Amino acid sequence: MRGWMNEGKSYIPPVGIGEVMRAGGIGRVVASTHAKFAPGQLVSGSLGVQSYATLTAEQAARAGLVKIDTRLGTPTQWLNVLGMPGMTAYFGLLDVGQPRAGETVVVSGAAGAVGQTVGQLARIKGCRAVGIAGGRAKCDWVVNELGFDACIDYKAGNVRAGLKEHCPKGVDVYFDNVGGEILDEVLARLAMKARIVICGAISQYNNTTPVQGPRNYLSLLVHRARMQGMVVFDYADRFPQAVTELATCLKDGRMKSREDVVHGFDRFPEALNRLFTGENFGKLVLQVADDVTGSR
Amino acid sequence: MRGWMNEGKSYIPPVGIGEVMRAGGIGRVVASTHAKFAPGQLVSGSLGVQSYATLTAEQAARAGLVKIDTRLGTPTQWLNVLGMPGMTAYFGLLDVGQPRAGETVVVSGAAGAVGQTVGQLARIKGCRAVGIAGGRAKCDWVVNELGFDACIDYKAGNVRAGLKEHCPKGVDVYFDNVGGEILDEVLARLAMKARIVICGAISQYNNTTPVQGPRNYLSLLVHRARMQGMVVFDYADRFPQAVTELATCLKDGRMKSREDVVHGFDRFPEALNRLFTGENFGKLVLQVADDVTGSR
Repeated sequence: MRGWMNEGKSYIPPVGIGEVMRAGGIGRVVASTHAKFAPGQLVSGSLGVQSYATLTAEQAARAGLVKIDTRLGTPTQWLNVLGMPGMTAYFGLLDVGQPRAGETVVVSGAAGAVGQTVGQLARIKGCRAVGIAGGRAKCDWVVNELGFDACIDYKAGNVRAGLKEHCPKGVDVYFDNVGGEILDEVLARLAMKARIVICGAISQYNNTTPVQGPRNYLSLLVHRARMQGMVVFDYADRFPQAVTELATCLKDGRMKSREDVVHGFDRFPEALNRLFTGENFGKLVLQVADDVTGSR
Repeated sequence: MRGWMNEGKSYIPPVGIGEVMRAGGIGRVVASTHAKFAPGQLVSGSLGVQSYATLTAEQAARAGLVKIDTRLGTPTQWLNVLGMPGMTAYFGLLDVGQPRAGETVVVSGAAGAVGQTVGQLARIKGCRAVGIAGGRAKCDWVVNELGFDACIDYKAGNVRAGLKEHCPKGVDVYFDNVGGEILDEVLARLAMKARIVICGAISQYNNTTPVQGPRNYLSLLVHRARMQGMVVFDYADRFPQAVTELATCLKDGRMKSREDVVHGFDRFPEALNRLFTGENFGKLVLQVADDVTGSR
């Protein structure tokens, strides 16, 4: 969302001033003349930050509107593990990162929406999972609840020492959500033929100075490693396969999820800013209507 | 060589103070008790910057000592297209860059040892080849003699405008020998799913400040692109295949080569420094003995 507020070419056009902010959301159908959607059904799609969305059939298709099956996960899980963050984690880790059993996978933003699923998937695939997160509480949760092998608290300081301790054989896959100094620290700790997945760079989005490029990028040469960008929308035709696998993991308890729900449409700016201070804990969800989750 | 003079971990140990500088070279066997080598034969291998090399059988194996066949190329071509620079170009472009016919390949240091072969190979594989080099003379040679589609003179200024003009559909493969600002300019001009081959970063080797990381690296995300490092030694078992193909191209005239020969052992420091000012034109060769090339 922060990137969509910038002018210039990106993977998707910016959101214009005065337009409804683009956002994936869950909604309940209030009224419909569309054969696929009936009142009362829960749907997910790019509904925007608004209390009500009115969509033509064509707009609904463009918004990727689909019914959701609450037997597979709760509505907030459909915004998390079974939604865009989960899809990003699944295809970014498995398709781009290509981890093999026994390898070490490091993920930044480990307690966030994408990071929590990346680390758990890495464990499920037989890898050592090491998170990087801000603060003791998040790190403890990532290790004790999600089962990561270790988590480095970047707010406590020494990421370098943490990587050395917890990745004794180097980093085979790094899933990067943050950029900046942490990316450089991981570059300095790569294993041979490592893969870095560039998913985001939240440390850089609010810069008033130019983006800090990774000074240690020549480690890619030394370690014959690669750094590759990904955008989740490219994998849309394979989302159903990923949802099936992730829902199975949720059901059998191998995968846990945490959502951080902020209540009230008016709290959107405050909620968004929490991502930049790191105050959110899990997938940040803005609940704009009580009806959707059945919690009225 | 410049990198081997730095302390610290790299893809190969540094050369110690007082040691013979590591260097690939061509020599003529003066005396031998080795069954594979007879006096008078021309050999290539890691002979070091010295007038005479004395090697045990084991050292000869470690130096990759092999006889060269001057029917395939001249001794200086065996240090260029048929040697490490050619191998670097071949495997870096084809294995890491994976160009497809019709794509646009950009290479920096285009008139240098590696660059000249990268661009010509790109043309042979049906790609558009765009060089980046310093000065009118080099650019003219690259286009008029080597057959590149275009060459951008970075010393004349505007690399950005040159890339825009000569890569109208964006850059599919960038073979980077220089790093720094030029890498950033190319990052800003990537095509979707572009591949960047990190072969070197000569603009950064003499830095007294930290390496300048590529500020535009998030273009990898926007364009689902990858940046990958390579070291030529990894492909040693496939060198014979590459030599055969490149020698064929030399013979039938599809591939040209240029070597810039500096005569005299004592001129080594001066010669090496020419790489950093860009004064060399083609593969820089230091000739330490007249006998080798038969030019006595």
